[in-house]
Amino acid sequence: MSLTIVGSVAFDAIETPFGKTDKIIGGAGTYISLSASYFSKQINLISVVGNDFPDDYMNILQKHGIDISGIQVKQDEKTFFWSGKYHDNMNKRDTLVTELNALAGFDPVVPDAYQNSDYLMLGNLTPDIQSKVIERMHKRPKFIMMDTMNFWMDNTPEDLKKTVSMVDLLCINDEEAQQMSGENSLVSAAEKILASGPKYLIIKKGAHGALLFDRNHNIFSAPALPLKSVFDPTGAGDTFAGGFIGYLAKTDNLSFENMKNALIIGSVMASFSIEKFGTERLQELDKAMIAERINQFINLTRFNLNTEKK
Amino acid sequence: MSLTIVGSVAFDAIETPFGKTDKIIGGAGTYISLSASYFSKQINLISVVGNDFPDDYMNILQKHGIDISGIQVKQDEKTFFWSGKYHDNMNKRDTLVTELNALAGFDPVVPDAYQNSDYLMLGNLTPDIQSKVIERMHKRPKFIMMDTMNFWMDNTPEDLKKTVSMVDLLCINDEEAQQMSGENSLVSAAEKILASGPKYLIIKKGAHGALLFDRNHNIFSAPALPLKSVFDPTGAGDTFAGGFIGYLAKTDNLSFENMKNALIIGSVMASFSIEKFGTERLQELDKAMIAERINQFINLTRFNLNTEKK
Repeated sequence: MSLTIVGSVAFDAIETPFGKTDKIIGGAGTYISLSASYFSKQINLISVVGNDFPDDYMNILQKHGIDISGIQVKQDEKTFFWSGKYHDNMNKRDTLVTELNALAGFDPVVPDAYQNSDYLMLGNLTPDIQSKVIERMHKRPKFIMMDTMNFWMDNTPEDLKKTVSMVDLLCINDEEAQQMSGENSLVSAAEKILASGPKYLIIKKGAHGALLFDRNHNIFSAPALPLKSVFDPTGAGDTFAGGFIGYLAKTDNLSFENMKNALIIGSVMASFSIEKFGTERLQELDKAMIAERINQFINLTRFNLNTEKK
Repeated sequence: MSLTIVGSVAFDAIETPFGKTDKIIGGAGTYISLSASYFSKQINLISVVGNDFPDDYMNILQKHGIDISGIQVKQDEKTFFWSGKYHDNMNKRDTLVTELNALAGFDPVVPDAYQNSDYLMLGNLTPDIQSKVIERMHKRPKFIMMDTMNFWMDNTPEDLKKTVSMVDLLCINDEEAQQMSGENSLVSAAEKILASGPKYLIIKKGAHGALLFDRNHNIFSAPALPLKSVFDPTGAGDTFAGGFIGYLAKTDNLSFENMKNALIIGSVMASFSIEKFGTERLQELDKAMIAERINQFINLTRFNLNTEKK
């Protein structure tokens, strides 16, 4: 089924203990789209860039079958630019530069060709822009997933509340779930958040994996792949979300059982993303590599206690 | 197969945001034995108590089929006493009282009836006492598991090194693994520790579950059961270890695949332990309750991606 993704397309400059990049292609919309492209074959991207965004970067998206007709190019503006530096243990980063540029006045347009999308993924953006996209679709998509962050909880809580109430699935990290609900236990946090609108909640726990909750008290736990080193964590959460929604759109099966598979696919894609700088690893994958990584997750989690005879 | 357990048998007084206990039965040896007793039918306990240790508490152990002939009763001494208070989010606790009493001069004796044990579990104790028990067994058990803690890494590192080199499996938490190895990544920490003696390593991550490693780079991840509230975390790690080794001794199968099952059983037992004060919950379980909890872990972790046809 077709999948429309809204999110930033940007320049990133990243520094980690392993090295430093120039301005490379980044942005939530980019990571989500590239990750989803390994599953869903009809991907539409809504975003905005400036006149400095190179054709080579547009080609990266197009080569992965992503429809870029929804990316507005602002002739008198520059592309959103973010720069960050990771500390030794990769758990903390400093943002060095944030230049919103073209993203500052982003007024999302949903092209006619995107109007009948069955799946909609709202990458982390101003909640007001996220809800505008939903309102500008002529018919509500079958399934809407959104990502957000603590910044919007602090600064635009009312707008965020409204957008959260309009979606099927909310994807946030553990600290954000605790802040949003005022609950320390993630189970209690999930119950409160699920009572405020979404039918499903994903809580990301970084190196500890992710949890999926529904309103019937079903819970699924996906581990992160234990790794010797993380090369660059930039975009891991977006890549995770892209794998999840891409797999859902491909299989078009909204059962909790199938969402478990989607959560594993999200974890698989995130485990690749952090192996190289930026989207580099996400650009070079193939089916065999993904199948092998899925097997690693099966070995990591599967036990046969239920068939135990002794 | 028979299982010998060495560990403290103690009085605990516990305070949590939910309430406060008098002196109740506690100690690593107690938690490990009670937890293992739901699996292994031949459990021998080596420990020491004072003349104040009540018959009622001895009866708790005996009622669970635990051989207590290896518990020395010191007529002129008192039983080891520990008291602690947990903070609101249960992640931190203050130790209020530690009176070693009879444990201070503990010189472990292995009764003849315990000499042919196939499985040996060394609960957290002075590493020197742990190695003495191994040396006092006439024949080396088939499988030796040990628990330890950061206190021994700081205070008796050489003794600890020696004991670790004598065992098959070491069980520690994530911070201890990082301290012991000097590595931040748990995968790198595991590689270093496995090169120093043990064939298997369990790294406990509290609410994030546990990881099992072997020298062939196999890794298995068991989640903790997501819970609304933790009533009393005291003894959760010992209960986990008891479930693990009790299941191994019962099944007598040292394959990595079977150890995966044992890790889940450890997690199942720990999830019960924290639901009530002290060993209360561990005293009242039955097979049906354990089977139901195993099913919760299956639902929490199982996905069917490998059989996906679409």
